[in-house]
Amino acid sequence: MNVIVDLCVVPLGVGVSVSAYVAECVRVLRDAGLATHTHAYGTNIEGDWDQVFAAVKQCHERVHALGAPRVSTTIKIGTRTDRMQTMDDKVRSVEEKLI
Amino acid sequence: MNVIVDLCVVPLGVGVSVSAYVAECVRVLRDAGLATHTHAYGTNIEGDWDQVFAAVKQCHERVHALGAPRVSTTIKIGTRTDRMQTMDDKVRSVEEKLI
Amino acid sequence: MNVIVDLCVVPLGVGVSVSAYVAECVRVLRDAGLATHTHAYGTNIEGDWDQVFAAVKQCHERVHALGAPRVSTTIKIGTRTDRMQTMDDKVRSVEEKLI
Amino acid sequence: MNVIVDLCVVPLGVGVSVSAYVAECVRVLRDAGLATHTHAYGTNIEGDWDQVFAAVKQCHERVHALGAPRVSTTIKIGTRTDRMQTMDDKVRSVEEKLI
Repeated sequence: MNVIVDLCVVPLGVGVSVSAYVAECVRVLRDAGLATHTHAYGTNIEGDWDQVFAAVKQCHERVHALGAPRVSTTIKIGTRTDRMQTMDDKVRSVEEKLI
Repeated sequence: MNVIVDLCVVPLGVGVSVSAYVAECVRVLRDAGLATHTHAYGTNIEGDWDQVFAAVKQCHERVHALGAPRVSTTIKIGTRTDRMQTMDDKVRSVEEKLI
Repeated sequence: MNVIVDLCVVPLGVGVSVSAYVAECVRVLRDAGLATHTHAYGTNIEGDWDQVFAAVKQCHERVHALGAPRVSTTIKIGTRTDRMQTMDDKVRSVEEKLI
Repeated sequence: MNVIVDLCVVPLGVGVSVSAYVAECVRVLRDAGLATHTHAYGTNIEGDWDQVFAAVKQCHERVHALGAPRVSTTIKIGTRTDRMQTMDDKVRSVEEKLI
């Protein structure tokens, strides 16, 4: 099952600067061979359900290992059975209607 | 790794009434032996990471099998390494401060 | 326009214990006369759009005033024009299908 | 109070194709003079709290006016009092750590 995910990881107990933890998560996702796009409030991910969620789990483990005692993550998950749709397709579909 | 999750599954392409799909997800979660609490905008779940996410995947599969061609889910995930905390602990901790 | 909201406020830069900040938000919401239900990963709110969002803004202001330099909040917002539906209606609708 | 928001509007009861509704929301945001970046699972918005939330309300009104009887939206809201930070700053801060 293919999935498009938006991942926003928030480490707690490490102060206000969280970009080092977010960067580490992006590294985990890329090392897993997943397509990603990082925006100002999260990272879009595209891939096979099991591979994506194995990487998400690894993100939590890695952020804890870097010293965050608490992690609060928000994820959006999109799946569809009617047709194949990539992240680029979704953005293009909106942009075409804005011309 | 223990996890507290909040799950909100939204089926698309099946009209405005979604409670049958939500109920099916609650059934999947309970059948998986997970502790749940359903509120007006989702379901709290508590359990082992792998068990919780296996059940979440099954929710998507089941909602598609019931006829929804598209599913958009929002999940919040909390993990902590400093101490054990249950769903009840979290609510109690807030309520104690409201007295 | 009536709205059902789920609010999850996460203060950053104040350590791992956030219940005092969450309790303050619940106080703000109740003082605003809004119906609320606090669960393990947020608070359901029901009311008029403008009143609810005025209270949400006040939550951010109050959490900053309590000392949090950064706040990251997740909100779900449900509106419908086909019929009136309360938070209790939503939960009951799911529970009826689980019997 | 300045705010960085991520907005994901999901219309229900209008089938599986939602890009026309999302495009209409982006139009509302741009007409309000707000900075936006649309990604595969939502739109980042930057601006003054009151202006951003007036536009978000208008998005719900417009999506209903286009025929959606039900709308379920997820929003992330970030505010900080320690320093000014733009959407571009946030992305750059992560990217610098990935080099």
